[in-house]
Amino acid sequence: MAKSANQLQIIEETPSYWRVVFDNPPLNIMGATMFHGLQELLSRMDASSSLRVVVFESANPDFYLAHFDLSDIAGSLGLMQSTDASVPTVLMDTFVRLTKSRVVSIAKIRGRVRGVGSEFVLACDMRFASRENTVLAQVEVGSGVHPGGGGIERLAHLVGRGRALEIIIGSDDFDGETAERYGYVNRAFPDAKLDDFVDKLARRIATFDRRPMEAAKNLVNQVSLPPTDRLVDSQNSFLTAVTWPETQRRFKTLFDRGLNKPGEVENRYGELLNTIGEQ
Amino acid sequence: MAKSANQLQIIEETPSYWRVVFDNPPLNIMGATMFHGLQELLSRMDASSSLRVVVFESANPDFYLAHFDLSDIAGSLGLMQSTDASVPTVLMDTFVRLTKSRVVSIAKIRGRVRGVGSEFVLACDMRFASRENTVLAQVEVGSGVHPGGGGIERLAHLVGRGRALEIIIGSDDFDGETAERYGYVNRAFPDAKLDDFVDKLARRIATFDRRPMEAAKNLVNQVSLPPTDRLVDSQNSFLTAVTWPETQRRFKTLFDRGLNKPGEVENRYGELLNTIGEQ
Amino acid sequence: MAKSANQLQIIEETPSYWRVVFDNPPLNIMGATMFHGLQELLSRMDASSSLRVVVFESANPDFYLAHFDLSDIAGSLGLMQSTDASVPTVLMDTFVRLTKSRVVSIAKIRGRVRGVGSEFVLACDMRFASRENTVLAQVEVGSGVHPGGGGIERLAHLVGRGRALEIIIGSDDFDGETAERYGYVNRAFPDAKLDDFVDKLARRIATFDRRPMEAAKNLVNQVSLPPTDRLVDSQNSFLTAVTWPETQRRFKTLFDRGLNKPGEVENRYGELLNTIGEQ
Repeated sequence: MAKSANQLQIIEETPSYWRVVFDNPPLNIMGATMFHGLQELLSRMDASSSLRVVVFESANPDFYLAHFDLSDIAGSLGLMQSTDASVPTVLMDTFVRLTKSRVVSIAKIRGRVRGVGSEFVLACDMRFASRENTVLAQVEVGSGVHPGGGGIERLAHLVGRGRALEIIIGSDDFDGETAERYGYVNRAFPDAKLDDFVDKLARRIATFDRRPMEAAKNLVNQVSLPPTDRLVDSQNSFLTAVTWPETQRRFKTLFDRGLNKPGEVENRYGELLNTIGEQ
Repeated sequence: MAKSANQLQIIEETPSYWRVVFDNPPLNIMGATMFHGLQELLSRMDASSSLRVVVFESANPDFYLAHFDLSDIAGSLGLMQSTDASVPTVLMDTFVRLTKSRVVSIAKIRGRVRGVGSEFVLACDMRFASRENTVLAQVEVGSGVHPGGGGIERLAHLVGRGRALEIIIGSDDFDGETAERYGYVNRAFPDAKLDDFVDKLARRIATFDRRPMEAAKNLVNQVSLPPTDRLVDSQNSFLTAVTWPETQRRFKTLFDRGLNKPGEVENRYGELLNTIGEQ
Repeated sequence: MAKSANQLQIIEETPSYWRVVFDNPPLNIMGATMFHGLQELLSRMDASSSLRVVVFESANPDFYLAHFDLSDIAGSLGLMQSTDASVPTVLMDTFVRLTKSRVVSIAKIRGRVRGVGSEFVLACDMRFASRENTVLAQVEVGSGVHPGGGGIERLAHLVGRGRALEIIIGSDDFDGETAERYGYVNRAFPDAKLDDFVDKLARRIATFDRRPMEAAKNLVNQVSLPPTDRLVDSQNSFLTAVTWPETQRRFKTLFDRGLNKPGEVENRYGELLNTIGEQ
């Protein structure tokens, strides 16, 4: 059924409907390998003449996408760097291609989705979450940086300035119910009903013609996508922030406490951020 | 009391407060006659020196506004065509005049509101719906086209990109409660309380002075109306989509199954759209 | 502990976290003195090298900020007038400095917040309200004018055109629960839990580094702040509206009935606005 290259299982349910399962144990941390997997996936999506919709889900019910891999600084930051200012970086290109793709993307969320993982689901066309088992967070500011992959621009549009600042500056964990109330996700469903709702919606969309969907998505994008210069500014500002000494100290504290390994810090990342500053 | 010319009853409750009742049995389908009725109504609204507020409601509790009349292709598409690119079409002019009118417009929704009917209520200043008896849908994409009368642009602003794509691409029916949660309507009320709330609000607004209302509405519009070029693009894209062969096949299937006649297709239009594609 | 100059108590909980308490008995009416107090506060906030977050609250649990002081017309309107078009007015400068400040601002709302008071909380970065004890309103249109201090532009962004028009044109009182549902505030909490939530959030933010917060807030502002020309237009339109004879008559009626004094009009200002027009 599936092949799991580049930390992604791609399951072709039908020629019109694929499921993509994040599979990078133990925590689904997003680094260079997964982004290159997403680039390959986007090329396969572009090449298909039958595909209408892709559902993104996780092999790990506790971690949908943990966060950016800061243990491989060169590899991860390389995703945000480009030698030619006219060429988008891998990270930005991945997110922008997903939003502009004629294929519809649906994030089906169970478990923790933090940092760049949250930015990934915000780049998807729709987001549905488990009411009991979802943790969404932009943990960057409390970690010494800020979202750099479009999360700032997309959240401000989706939830308004006040709630966006609470999510981004507060850096805390949000449960499924609050995420729905804020508009961070389309809807939160009781966990037992999530699969059925998303599967029915995807199979329904899979019966529709490609041209009207593509035209409709393009027209929605015209009035809702963040301008490229804003995305570039956020990315560059992120790359600067990573170099600040106080930020380096926060990263070190996070790794000393257990970041990137199963355990308390990964389980309660948002909640614990008020304990890592200089005391 | 009322006269019902052009499928609209206009009831002058007071010189400051009118009710307009959609009355095109059996389904309140919107075609050329109703749009010309709305154009006449807008001229009467402009000419009144006392009018403050108009409430739009339906004579049929099951169908507020069914959808665009595609049985009269020449008449309906004519509403979206103009021989002079500098002159707005009848359809766009109707919706833009309503949003820019100094008279406040309130949609009081009971029953089904789909397609161009949904675009009409989105062009109103406020929307209040029956919690038990409302079905809102943009059924276009599942029917082979896409919203072409401003619904795309207005929904993206009101409910954000993710929920707008779910409504527009998913093409499904939304109940009053979900519509409220999404911001598709201002509020959904228990059916027994809807009339009283809207009537009190309209009578309240009717006591206010015209100049501050006009200034306030104009200032809100400055930061919330979709740009004209976006509306024109959507309309032109719609006119192209109507000509696609696969779209023509979907229209034929819908009519073969009973579109435009009382029955299952009109009752469950959104829900049934996953059954009309090529099998 | 606190000093209460210019109707503001400033309580330095820690060098990183201040509370500012509105203290202008009996109703916390906002006039020239309070705005000059806010200007001084903003200068102190700018000058601090340690401050991260300021919480704004009220000494009076029934009135957070009543409304603009129209009993001192020269003093109040002077806050919106400038002899040099290139220099922002005191009122606009206060609100814009607050939104652009590198210090995070949180409105903790109990009691009535109307007119320019609502515009103040909308200029804050986040808003949390008591579920049982909050009244939010833009009472201007029913009083013969319209919001002139950015409330129109900020509400349209936060809650969308339909709900913004209901709040602004309807001029009625909104409770905490509805304000949360509309996105007018971030969240409404049971009154007994409000202090604890806001205090924990502020103390949490106080542990974060200043540079990432400043960068994040600046990036959010880039995609969410109203353009200056829109704010200037609203302010000038307000100054014109104040001179209209019908508006002067409404102001007189409001003062005759008891505006600016404890009692029914101040308690039920929004609700009573349908009784002050020409009968």
